[in-house]
Amino acid sequence: MLDFTINDVPHTRLNILTGERILVSPHRSKRPWQGQVEELSLDKRPEYDPNCYLCPGNKRADGSENPYYKESFVFVNDFSALLKDTEEGNINEEGLLVAETERGICKVIAFTPRHDLTLPEMDVEDIKKVVDVWQSEFTSLASNEWIKYIQIFENKGSIMGCSNPHPHGQIWAESKLPMEILKEEKQQQEYFLKNKKSLLSGYLALELKKKERIIIDNEHFVALVPFWAAWPFETLLISKRHVTDITEFSEEEKLDLARTLQQLTIRYDNIFSTSFPYSAGMHQAPVNNGNQDFWHWHMHFYPPLLRSATVKKFMVGYEMLANPQRDITAEKAAEIIRNQPTTHYKSNTK
Amino acid sequence: MLDFTINDVPHTRLNILTGERILVSPHRSKRPWQGQVEELSLDKRPEYDPNCYLCPGNKRADGSENPYYKESFVFVNDFSALLKDTEEGNINEEGLLVAETERGICKVIAFTPRHDLTLPEMDVEDIKKVVDVWQSEFTSLASNEWIKYIQIFENKGSIMGCSNPHPHGQIWAESKLPMEILKEEKQQQEYFLKNKKSLLSGYLALELKKKERIIIDNEHFVALVPFWAAWPFETLLISKRHVTDITEFSEEEKLDLARTLQQLTIRYDNIFSTSFPYSAGMHQAPVNNGNQDFWHWHMHFYPPLLRSATVKKFMVGYEMLANPQRDITAEKAAEIIRNQPTTHYKSNTK
Ligand SMILES: O=P(O)(O)O[C@H]1O[C@H](CO)[C@@H](O)[C@H](O)[C@H]1O
Ligand SMILES: O=P(O)(O)O[C@H]1O[C@H](CO)[C@@H](O)[C@H](O)[C@H]1O
Repeated sequence: MLDFTINDVPHTRLNILTGERILVSPHRSKRPWQGQVEELSLDKRPEYDPNCYLCPGNKRADGSENPYYKESFVFVNDFSALLKDTEEGNINEEGLLVAETERGICKVIAFTPRHDLTLPEMDVEDIKKVVDVWQSEFTSLASNEWIKYIQIFENKGSIMGCSNPHPHGQIWAESKLPMEILKEEKQQQEYFLKNKKSLLSGYLALELKKKERIIIDNEHFVALVPFWAAWPFETLLISKRHVTDITEFSEEEKLDLARTLQQLTIRYDNIFSTSFPYSAGMHQAPVNNGNQDFWHWHMHFYPPLLRSATVKKFMVGYEMLANPQRDITAEKAAEIIRNQPTTHYKSNTK
Repeated sequence: MLDFTINDVPHTRLNILTGERILVSPHRSKRPWQGQVEELSLDKRPEYDPNCYLCPGNKRADGSENPYYKESFVFVNDFSALLKDTEEGNINEEGLLVAETERGICKVIAFTPRHDLTLPEMDVEDIKKVVDVWQSEFTSLASNEWIKYIQIFENKGSIMGCSNPHPHGQIWAESKLPMEILKEEKQQQEYFLKNKKSLLSGYLALELKKKERIIIDNEHFVALVPFWAAWPFETLLISKRHVTDITEFSEEEKLDLARTLQQLTIRYDNIFSTSFPYSAGMHQAPVNNGNQDFWHWHMHFYPPLLRSATVKKFMVGYEMLANPQRDITAEKAAEIIRNQPTTHYKSNTK
């Protein structure tokens, strides 16, 4: 029962996954914009680019040559932020200067040999092959006892720090649980102990009843704008079955995940008729870390655009120092994404 | 005592103010950059711009006219994210959809009538007048019983979402404590109870002994790169005296704060010979909220630039989903900032 009109009034919402709040200012979407406008990438790319370090047959930074791969291609990042052979070490001076070494493996996954595609432009069958690679990479990385957490993600678009337009994602696997995972662990564990079911199962049931923030609802997955979304068009993908990580998905579920990814990203591209930038990634149970039954696999999409293909949301002063803030409501954003055509805007002009 | 070489090896560091960790990858600064390059603003602005809603005598969005002010000028934001008259209300469905209305006041402060200046180009005496306004605004906002926290901040540069180059800052005052303040409250309170002094007094003493991360050390203030800095050139300003908020500063301290701000921002501008963008703001004790003795006034500077005036650090995929990450170490960054001349690069070409 709402005791205020959520579409009109400044309010905070609780992010049940992190336990943190965001500030919503619905009345503020009328604000005019005279600030920074991003450059539109023309996005006419060739199928093969001789200067791309991800294209088949090309040279990489370490001097090696990419194979003539036909589906996807995985390799260790030539500029890894984490290294496999870092030794254990730590510093602690008066509890004020506290540091610990961190060990890890960073990988890059080219999604397809085609330089000119993006996920929403790939066939479902080809996206399914990317899901297969995520699954097998997760399994093989988890076979290292010392790896505790595996972050699968994609930075799409130069506005999201992506330095090569060839469709690709990354995996950073490491020896400690990162901060966001610690927050989600605490929240999910508490709920599970109290309710004997996963937090996201409970949340999903409520959202499917409300139908206010749902974008896609198919046999195995739901894509929705979470009640507590911070980014204007932020979405959350939840598996209907409570699984702790990607290794548990059946062939059928993986195909459905591929379909969901395609359908969501096509809608994204259609909003502003542009290749929609985002950072996206899965959150799943840590590995080699005891009982993790309370974890429920999900995937976050954090897209920066707000008003157009060239005007983004700035998470700056107030947001960095105090609290994340948004203008358009989650409900309004869900409506906009849901109402997009499910055929890619480019497919008519091809 | 360090038991690993902090300048070479991937490691995490603890942010003692938030209790969260950041990932440092010192070896990664050699990574080449082929990604997004920001546009350089030419930054030749007139002293008065007839189209600027902050210049003296000009029209604002609400139809009113700015006074012909001679120092600084404060008004309620025409597009406030928080409103004064929001009524109390809350939603709670199964602990899963949780929201509460939020009340507040958003103000804008033009730092000077001169459209063409920025803080580092202003005289110390004029910056001191801005500090005076911050102090008096804090006092008058805090006189509202229902206001619990006052965030004073500045977004500088279009890359930081600033939509008007006229030098100005903002104040958002509100009825609840924002997330970052809750984190810093917990950490500072715990330390204070245990050590009978403020967390930042303890930290400052250790940093002044080490001298590895100090940039400015004058009578009343220290500017340093905190051990746990996440942004490449992030800095922290700490008052030597343990005061809980800006209202306690004497005339002499305010003048020294103005000097520190000028000296820090001149160095910033000199790093890449550009008007150095940042979001900056003070963290201070909540108001009308009981005993806050453990709070120690400080000011954060979060500048986005990394390699040049046009290449910034992207806090994206891994950072949003897992953990903030940096390449260059805090010690290296401190050295770079400290070694900048204290005369503004433009003053020679004027
Ligand atoms: O208030 P302004 O200057 O219009 O807007 C700027 O600062 C605000 C507070 O940090 C942010 O919410 C906005 O995204 C940013 O563009
Ligand atoms: O790994 P890349 O693509 O070179 O780099 C990009 O993603 C990383 C992981 O999110 C970030 O640390 C970098 O700032 C970003 O530019």
